[in-house]
Amino acid sequence: MGNTFGHLFRITTWGESHGGAVGVVVDGCPPRLKLSEADIQPDLDRRRPGQSRIVTQRKETDTIKILSGVFEGKTLGTPISMLVWNEDQRPEAYADFKDKFRPSHADYTYLAKYGIRNWAGGGRASARETVGRVAAAAIAKKILRERCKTEILAYVKQVKNLVAKVNPSKVKFQQIERGIVRCPDEVAAEKMIRMIDAARKQGDSLGGVVECVARNVPVGLGEPVFDKLEADLAKAVMSLPASKAFEIGSGFSGILLAGSQHNDPFTIRGGRVRTKSNFSGGVQGGISNGEDIIIRVAFKPTATIMQTQETVTIDQKKALLKAKGRHDPCVLPRAVPMVEAMVALVLVDHLLRHEAQCGKR
Amino acid sequence: MGNTFGHLFRITTWGESHGGAVGVVVDGCPPRLKLSEADIQPDLDRRRPGQSRIVTQRKETDTIKILSGVFEGKTLGTPISMLVWNEDQRPEAYADFKDKFRPSHADYTYLAKYGIRNWAGGGRASARETVGRVAAAAIAKKILRERCKTEILAYVKQVKNLVAKVNPSKVKFQQIERGIVRCPDEVAAEKMIRMIDAARKQGDSLGGVVECVARNVPVGLGEPVFDKLEADLAKAVMSLPASKAFEIGSGFSGILLAGSQHNDPFTIRGGRVRTKSNFSGGVQGGISNGEDIIIRVAFKPTATIMQTQETVTIDQKKALLKAKGRHDPCVLPRAVPMVEAMVALVLVDHLLRHEAQCGKR
Amino acid sequence: MGNTFGHLFRITTWGESHGGAVGVVVDGCPPRLKLSEADIQPDLDRRRPGQSRIVTQRKETDTIKILSGVFEGKTLGTPISMLVWNEDQRPEAYADFKDKFRPSHADYTYLAKYGIRNWAGGGRASARETVGRVAAAAIAKKILRERCKTEILAYVKQVKNLVAKVNPSKVKFQQIERGIVRCPDEVAAEKMIRMIDAARKQGDSLGGVVECVARNVPVGLGEPVFDKLEADLAKAVMSLPASKAFEIGSGFSGILLAGSQHNDPFTIRGGRVRTKSNFSGGVQGGISNGEDIIIRVAFKPTATIMQTQETVTIDQKKALLKAKGRHDPCVLPRAVPMVEAMVALVLVDHLLRHEAQCGKR
Amino acid sequence: MGNTFGHLFRITTWGESHGGAVGVVVDGCPPRLKLSEADIQPDLDRRRPGQSRIVTQRKETDTIKILSGVFEGKTLGTPISMLVWNEDQRPEAYADFKDKFRPSHADYTYLAKYGIRNWAGGGRASARETVGRVAAAAIAKKILRERCKTEILAYVKQVKNLVAKVNPSKVKFQQIERGIVRCPDEVAAEKMIRMIDAARKQGDSLGGVVECVARNVPVGLGEPVFDKLEADLAKAVMSLPASKAFEIGSGFSGILLAGSQHNDPFTIRGGRVRTKSNFSGGVQGGISNGEDIIIRVAFKPTATIMQTQETVTIDQKKALLKAKGRHDPCVLPRAVPMVEAMVALVLVDHLLRHEAQCGKR
Repeated sequence: MGNTFGHLFRITTWGESHGGAVGVVVDGCPPRLKLSEADIQPDLDRRRPGQSRIVTQRKETDTIKILSGVFEGKTLGTPISMLVWNEDQRPEAYADFKDKFRPSHADYTYLAKYGIRNWAGGGRASARETVGRVAAAAIAKKILRERCKTEILAYVKQVKNLVAKVNPSKVKFQQIERGIVRCPDEVAAEKMIRMIDAARKQGDSLGGVVECVARNVPVGLGEPVFDKLEADLAKAVMSLPASKAFEIGSGFSGILLAGSQHNDPFTIRGGRVRTKSNFSGGVQGGISNGEDIIIRVAFKPTATIMQTQETVTIDQKKALLKAKGRHDPCVLPRAVPMVEAMVALVLVDHLLRHEAQCGKR
Repeated sequence: MGNTFGHLFRITTWGESHGGAVGVVVDGCPPRLKLSEADIQPDLDRRRPGQSRIVTQRKETDTIKILSGVFEGKTLGTPISMLVWNEDQRPEAYADFKDKFRPSHADYTYLAKYGIRNWAGGGRASARETVGRVAAAAIAKKILRERCKTEILAYVKQVKNLVAKVNPSKVKFQQIERGIVRCPDEVAAEKMIRMIDAARKQGDSLGGVVECVARNVPVGLGEPVFDKLEADLAKAVMSLPASKAFEIGSGFSGILLAGSQHNDPFTIRGGRVRTKSNFSGGVQGGISNGEDIIIRVAFKPTATIMQTQETVTIDQKKALLKAKGRHDPCVLPRAVPMVEAMVALVLVDHLLRHEAQCGKR
Repeated sequence: MGNTFGHLFRITTWGESHGGAVGVVVDGCPPRLKLSEADIQPDLDRRRPGQSRIVTQRKETDTIKILSGVFEGKTLGTPISMLVWNEDQRPEAYADFKDKFRPSHADYTYLAKYGIRNWAGGGRASARETVGRVAAAAIAKKILRERCKTEILAYVKQVKNLVAKVNPSKVKFQQIERGIVRCPDEVAAEKMIRMIDAARKQGDSLGGVVECVARNVPVGLGEPVFDKLEADLAKAVMSLPASKAFEIGSGFSGILLAGSQHNDPFTIRGGRVRTKSNFSGGVQGGISNGEDIIIRVAFKPTATIMQTQETVTIDQKKALLKAKGRHDPCVLPRAVPMVEAMVALVLVDHLLRHEAQCGKR
Repeated sequence: MGNTFGHLFRITTWGESHGGAVGVVVDGCPPRLKLSEADIQPDLDRRRPGQSRIVTQRKETDTIKILSGVFEGKTLGTPISMLVWNEDQRPEAYADFKDKFRPSHADYTYLAKYGIRNWAGGGRASARETVGRVAAAAIAKKILRERCKTEILAYVKQVKNLVAKVNPSKVKFQQIERGIVRCPDEVAAEKMIRMIDAARKQGDSLGGVVECVARNVPVGLGEPVFDKLEADLAKAVMSLPASKAFEIGSGFSGILLAGSQHNDPFTIRGGRVRTKSNFSGGVQGGISNGEDIIIRVAFKPTATIMQTQETVTIDQKKALLKAKGRHDPCVLPRAVPMVEAMVALVLVDHLLRHEAQCGKR
């Protein structure tokens, strides 16, 4: 249970990291949208392992295949099924994990919950599971772009204690993608790569913050009181592997201000209602106000490290875990398209939900 | 849309802050649970306005009435409908807001979304809406307590830049409730009250952090990959009015550590699998691991301040908003039972979901 | 669980037949719809007990009260909570049923399922539960009428073996409502009343068929493959108390024809695609085709009879049940507004769902 | 939208009849169930086209492949993705249907709804879509059998006006499967085959009734008031292609009786509460009572006939449709496993839902 996301633009993902394939079914996609694998592959390539030396080196081409829901280059309005075959399956690399729980992985909790687990890899807890999310979100992004010119950009904002300088309202896709760490601040990016390289050599890992901005979001998205836009955004990104915290707008730093400083004064600009500041982060009362939506997500240092760790066996004996398998020194560069994906899935679902109740603007 | 929360223990809340009443329908409550208004009123009293000088002074007794689903003192397994009549309705106090948007309130977004809004108060965007959540959660807490001895405690962890010292694994309900600010660190509590009093006198407001711990949570709760426990917790608390950020376990501070420091080593303690540290915050791979679940929620300084602010009118003219109505200098003391409520609702729903698929342990 | 119906126009009903009140929460109603109790009361009056001698004589005025979601005469887009207080509560009349299961009632199954039951009446299994459905559906009907001129009319088509002659495409509301049995065929209606009167005098009950036509249904409603329009219509009416069978279009009688006779030839009429016959009943492939939607629902003879019956006690001893309480000789006249209600709820939900994915026509 | 069925045992089907493949994702399957393709293939073989001369002759082996959710022969509790590749794709056979609507097919309504349609076959409206349902239901059947010894058997009860004599409480699987028409009454079966053969030779088609019995259903399944067991059964089977009517227990014939005849007297048999008759069909008040659940489903004569028919073109001109493609003289033998599948899916979902709220018995 729990493998479906969205109310009207619904995705259901499936697949273990070392099973035969991973995939997704998208239900509720509007009909007559031009769509082919070429719309989807680029985001998968950004998510792919092995794209640079600072991410995990698993070998996968992640070539997407559309199995249904598209006819003569257009969506039919019926479910779109897509899959990617797993190519790099090496259960032998995981043999040592058959009997021992890797610290801060999901090995123990999966076994405790289900009484069984696929020890030949991370199973559903692997970041490999996000293939389906990113593929589905490529469709969501296309709908948002075509209907509302909505643009969703994420980037690495912080690695460990190093914070990049980025203007979320101005940053461009090319600035983010020109470097392997996906940080548009070139000076910071260079330092980040050095930090990750150093951690990699020590068999260690680093965490950080991905910031994401959504521009040109229509006013009115969000369904109070439980499906407020920030609530669904929080859920969406907190369902990504390794995420530990979420902020919107001023977030934790907003509490250092008094209300008189933190309130966003309304004004008229460009013939419409705008706010002078944007501590709200584009959402007020759970509903988008047309300003840039800005969120931040903290990702912990990856649990897969190349050092010996204390753990226990499945029959409850203390043991040491010797590092094996592939090291993942920093998830952040690959987390960028994942965060974008979750934001896109939330926005397109809320766009349809809003129009369903309140009509088109 | 969006007024229902939960899959198996489902609540639907209704009611505007200045309509006739506010209430909730709980569907899916297990049958034969002893239940009366006396189980519910205490948490409503903790949520109530006017309980001290540092919160909003709206006058409401918030007396809960159970209308269905209980027979001879026990739940029937049928929907439990509960309501609280609104007593303190003063639309005249809001007359000035009929034509002007209060900054950082939901006035503008509600009108933009729905094309209509109840200007005689905050409507559904008011914290008054949480009456239904807190009432429903009192039932959830009772189920968790009786079935699993699960204990959920929230408290004020930070006001503005003042951070309290609290041990989440040891803190007791009585320590939290003995002061009006609901902070168990007595020294910090006294300072917090002074800070809020000062803001109150200036017609200003303060924000802060509520921390919440859930102890004795069964292993195995959480439904990957989208309904991971931390994802649903994040959504739950981010749907509360004025919340801006969410953390679980190490949260944002965890990214300052390397993976080798941040991973929680497994060990055997008390005859079962435990972790030596708890940076994970009680959840790994989206599933509870039996350690204390610890989350933090940032609440912005309340938008309702007693100072003149820049804004615009509904016909898009610039205007000044003169303070009126009731001042709410700090939402934190009342947010404490709200956060507990959302955590309880998530946990009980996930308890039922887990047992449905995986059986009772 | 199971007290919510609909995806976008969602209703949640609550209340036992002999608890304090019965009610409903409607979530997802479009905003800015003119609405007051006067829109809702008429259908409740048609559903009300005691409206004629041939239905149950329970004394209820069933006066609806709107508690939320409406402001200055218009819907806000927020949940609409409505309730009716129970007036005629006579638990003493049910004292004999405390220990004995009434045959073909839900006494046994509720106790077996929940381990507890409200023996002071039918609880949730009572037709009283439909108050909430009919109230919510009055809103649904208004939306359908205003947006699409959709008209939904039900009537008694058959009592026991007596079948009325009615042209579903021509029948008018006034023809249905002029008699207490709600059958527009005046000759048949008179006989039906005599049959029900005879059964009533013997303390017995009769069943029959309610037919319902929906005219001016937009083309395109229905969500294959599981939420086909006929599937949701079937579920909707089969959730009414005492219903035993459902047909759409040719139904059971269609199987007597060969495919060459049963297929509905397409033609052009009034400038649009029409069918020459309507064996399909207005739905093809699960999607409305613009022809009249015609369904039939069989209601069993009411289980509440005034004769001595064989049964068992809750401690599993054989026993006789002496008739008591109120006799309900025929549910059909009151089932008419209930069937209309369920059809309206399905159609409005599917209208919103269709527009959400495919856009407005 | 609408391609997911079930709340806790959830299936999502995908695939057009002439796209690359058809498949299903099952979410919520309990873990540690032994499962392989060998559990699923037999029901697919019963559903398969070309299994005898009296059904459609499309050539498909329908070989199922499990892509996820199973590890070392057991379910993991994660989504089970299964697919069948389409082998017999002949778009050229459908060229004539590109511009003309086949009468009583879904060609017109799909185009009207979505503004696009896959004319190279029936798309999602084809019975081919049921591959995923039948595959998923093979798992559901196995769970029901292992947990509750529940047995679900369907058979052809009627072809045109010929009604078979079958005792639903005694009929055996082997009796049903020994003949190509799947009617356990051998005399009737022979006549049915002759009738279908005659229709086939005329290029015509016949409809009929499938009856289904579920034995050893636990007491207590069904979630009033909307998700009553009979309501979900009705929806389930009315979502099958070509179904036009649904009955449970006495169905339409029950209305010919008076309440005093129709009520099922309770008695004690085998140490537990039983009913003497079973007009209720195993369900009372929406909840199973432990008696056999008996339903009947009417299937119209197949719309695919080999005769010239009146129709219109997509640009709204009258036209004749010359028969082409594959004839399907009678869907009933293949509908048998489809009806069983839908009943199994409903029962297993309700089993999990019941246990979630009310606990295991």
